[in-house]
Amino acid sequence: MKLTKPPSGMRDFLPNDIARRDLVLSVIRTIYDRYGFVPLETPAIENLSTLLGKYGEEGDQLLYRILHRRDNLSRALTAEPSQATLADEGLRYDLTVPLARVVAQYELPKFFKRYQIQPVWRADRPGTGRFREFYQCDVDITGTQGLIAEAEVCGAVAEVLQTLGFKDFKIRLNHRQLLRSMMVASGIDQGHETAALVAVDKLDKIGDGGVREELAARGIPGESANILMELILMAEADVLLSLSKHITDSEGVAAIAELHQIINLLSVTPAGPHVSLSLDLARGLGYYTGAIFEITVPDLAGSLGGGGRYDNLVGMFGKKQVPAVGFSLGLERILVLMEERGMFPQLTTGPDLLLCWLGIPLTKVLQVAHHLREQRIRVEVYPEAAPLRKQLEYANAIKVPVAGILGTQEWVSTTLTLKDLQTGQQHAWPIAEAWKAFTPPA
Amino acid sequence: MKLTKPPSGMRDFLPNDIARRDLVLSVIRTIYDRYGFVPLETPAIENLSTLLGKYGEEGDQLLYRILHRRDNLSRALTAEPSQATLADEGLRYDLTVPLARVVAQYELPKFFKRYQIQPVWRADRPGTGRFREFYQCDVDITGTQGLIAEAEVCGAVAEVLQTLGFKDFKIRLNHRQLLRSMMVASGIDQGHETAALVAVDKLDKIGDGGVREELAARGIPGESANILMELILMAEADVLLSLSKHITDSEGVAAIAELHQIINLLSVTPAGPHVSLSLDLARGLGYYTGAIFEITVPDLAGSLGGGGRYDNLVGMFGKKQVPAVGFSLGLERILVLMEERGMFPQLTTGPDLLLCWLGIPLTKVLQVAHHLREQRIRVEVYPEAAPLRKQLEYANAIKVPVAGILGTQEWVSTTLTLKDLQTGQQHAWPIAEAWKAFTPPA
Repeated sequence: MKLTKPPSGMRDFLPNDIARRDLVLSVIRTIYDRYGFVPLETPAIENLSTLLGKYGEEGDQLLYRILHRRDNLSRALTAEPSQATLADEGLRYDLTVPLARVVAQYELPKFFKRYQIQPVWRADRPGTGRFREFYQCDVDITGTQGLIAEAEVCGAVAEVLQTLGFKDFKIRLNHRQLLRSMMVASGIDQGHETAALVAVDKLDKIGDGGVREELAARGIPGESANILMELILMAEADVLLSLSKHITDSEGVAAIAELHQIINLLSVTPAGPHVSLSLDLARGLGYYTGAIFEITVPDLAGSLGGGGRYDNLVGMFGKKQVPAVGFSLGLERILVLMEERGMFPQLTTGPDLLLCWLGIPLTKVLQVAHHLREQRIRVEVYPEAAPLRKQLEYANAIKVPVAGILGTQEWVSTTLTLKDLQTGQQHAWPIAEAWKAFTPPA
Repeated sequence: MKLTKPPSGMRDFLPNDIARRDLVLSVIRTIYDRYGFVPLETPAIENLSTLLGKYGEEGDQLLYRILHRRDNLSRALTAEPSQATLADEGLRYDLTVPLARVVAQYELPKFFKRYQIQPVWRADRPGTGRFREFYQCDVDITGTQGLIAEAEVCGAVAEVLQTLGFKDFKIRLNHRQLLRSMMVASGIDQGHETAALVAVDKLDKIGDGGVREELAARGIPGESANILMELILMAEADVLLSLSKHITDSEGVAAIAELHQIINLLSVTPAGPHVSLSLDLARGLGYYTGAIFEITVPDLAGSLGGGGRYDNLVGMFGKKQVPAVGFSLGLERILVLMEERGMFPQLTTGPDLLLCWLGIPLTKVLQVAHHLREQRIRVEVYPEAAPLRKQLEYANAIKVPVAGILGTQEWVSTTLTLKDLQTGQQHAWPIAEAWKAFTPPA
């Protein structure tokens, strides 16, 4: 008995799954279009030189690498083979790095507003709502440091969620530079910055105490940890105002001003009612430089999506510096939540009609099928000779709403009997008019 | 300077490429729906045990294999590492084997009519119209040996091509069993069958003489080669009738009867005018058992697509025998041909309006943008402060049809100046009514 399940962490999408996914994707595309974004797609496979060093060490380890073939493989096997010599291509890990590569490669509009909806692959431990192949739905704006870009990507994502029927989502907002300045103010030296970021990012999972333990384990003095946690957990009414008493370096002051401005701009977009400043938000990926965002809902551990500003990533390809900001939605988690919450309408899939036949030439059956299809009716033809009872059983099994019956009697009268499989009622139609019994798809 | 091109044989799809591709895909989906097929998607990554041994030796060599990670990699590296020990997952090579796996795995309708439109990966030598990542658009019917299934997949594919505007395509038709019986009639022993098939399949590339040379090189006696080529190149008016004088084994006789029946059924479908019996058609893939098809056009070397009956593939997964037949269209080649032949209409992409602004609060700009978006207008906002001249230059660069201008003057009069960038004409609209100047997308 051979294994017929998909590989670990991957799924097959059967027709009903696809109907639900298409519904969500069509909302996403419509809204992204309306915000002036244009579609882009990139290959599943990228050179490892493009991918490595962009996601942090943990990210590098989660990359799917493509094994060399033929001569390249033989060559790698003769020397001391290692992960580094056995592969130089890998699967796309996100859609941001491919975008940065594209922006470095092509002559594009000065402000490139693109959306991209494609699967990405991460060899992560699979879990509920966490897959190894999953779709990301990204919007990004490259070429500007204007904060309208932040407002536009957050606005678009909020409008998508709102249109899908979500009401209780939160857009958590923070700023990488502010985090850095809070560390400076806490006396944490630059060498410990990344370690402290990683610890702080876990606040919602491991709590205040857990973060302090982790900060200590990473060699950050208790006093610094105290100041940092005090800043981060600040509960004043106007957190930004209170913060500005402690943050005095010019980058930190600028970051606070940016957050002010972003919150102000978001207030007139669909994101307004959902945004909340979250000083503990750090985001895992290495490439962020400015504002960072994350979307959460009460009944989901982890996030529905996230993003931020990354002004140096395009420049890492060594051709030109191009600032950028983007937001990524995780399709799988949206689908899981909508399913759990019963947010999907009743969706119909499959044909409008099963054509059943008995005792007449097959060419006649196909002619009737083609006639109906010309009228936009979706027709399945029962593919082999069988008793009518068996054909109708199959019609019920596939839940087709109507069976069309074509027997000798119908054939002599050029009619088609349409049987409503819900009510059991049937009615003979002249073949040329049978299409009138249906509402064709738009 | 780092490499920013996609890997060899892969492409980025920029917005205009996607617009053209979406046009073709929407025709394909609509027609496949109308023929009663339902959509399926499977993961990019499959277990190698699923893929290996299904495509013939050459196919196995073109598979993209995923390098083991962490412990699995260490373990593979300590022993004598080889291609076989370094990977147990690979990228999808076609959509037929994943379908067979899915049919073996799930409880599906007795007749599963599915379409699947996804990329596949083959580490082939890249060339014109030949990529390493390319989309296949497959229709298949599983669960029946009824020849209506052959007629339906050919009819669907022919209707797709017809709807896209192709008139000159040919559906070449042959039968694997007939090929086998021709070999029997030529005295070729079973051990040489595959070799002879591979040679015959090259007839259109290397000609009669070339095939004879290759047959000789593969150890097939000249006399047998002569008989085989005579049968294959038979030019009688009714080839099937003439063939039946030479083919006398019961499987061969049945194959001829099936071809008769298929041609008869196809005559009442959109495939009818295009089908032609081609005794030299062999098709590379190993899994075909009955009728085989291939689509060709005069101005393209190679085929636009192909397919056939494969009654044993699902059974290779060891759970149950399920007969099947399918047809696959190659999206890339369709796109290349339509482009070369100028078959695409003028397609517009991108926003309806660029919102330009000067000297007014940013929140006001975003409010106007959102108001227009609520009316379904696709709006891009100029993302940073700039002289109006520069903003209009950008509008022209991205070929947006209309610029909306929002200056202090407009602001005091609650208007928006709409400037037609083709004619240069401009007109001030009350903001609440500006949407009336547009035809919103359907």
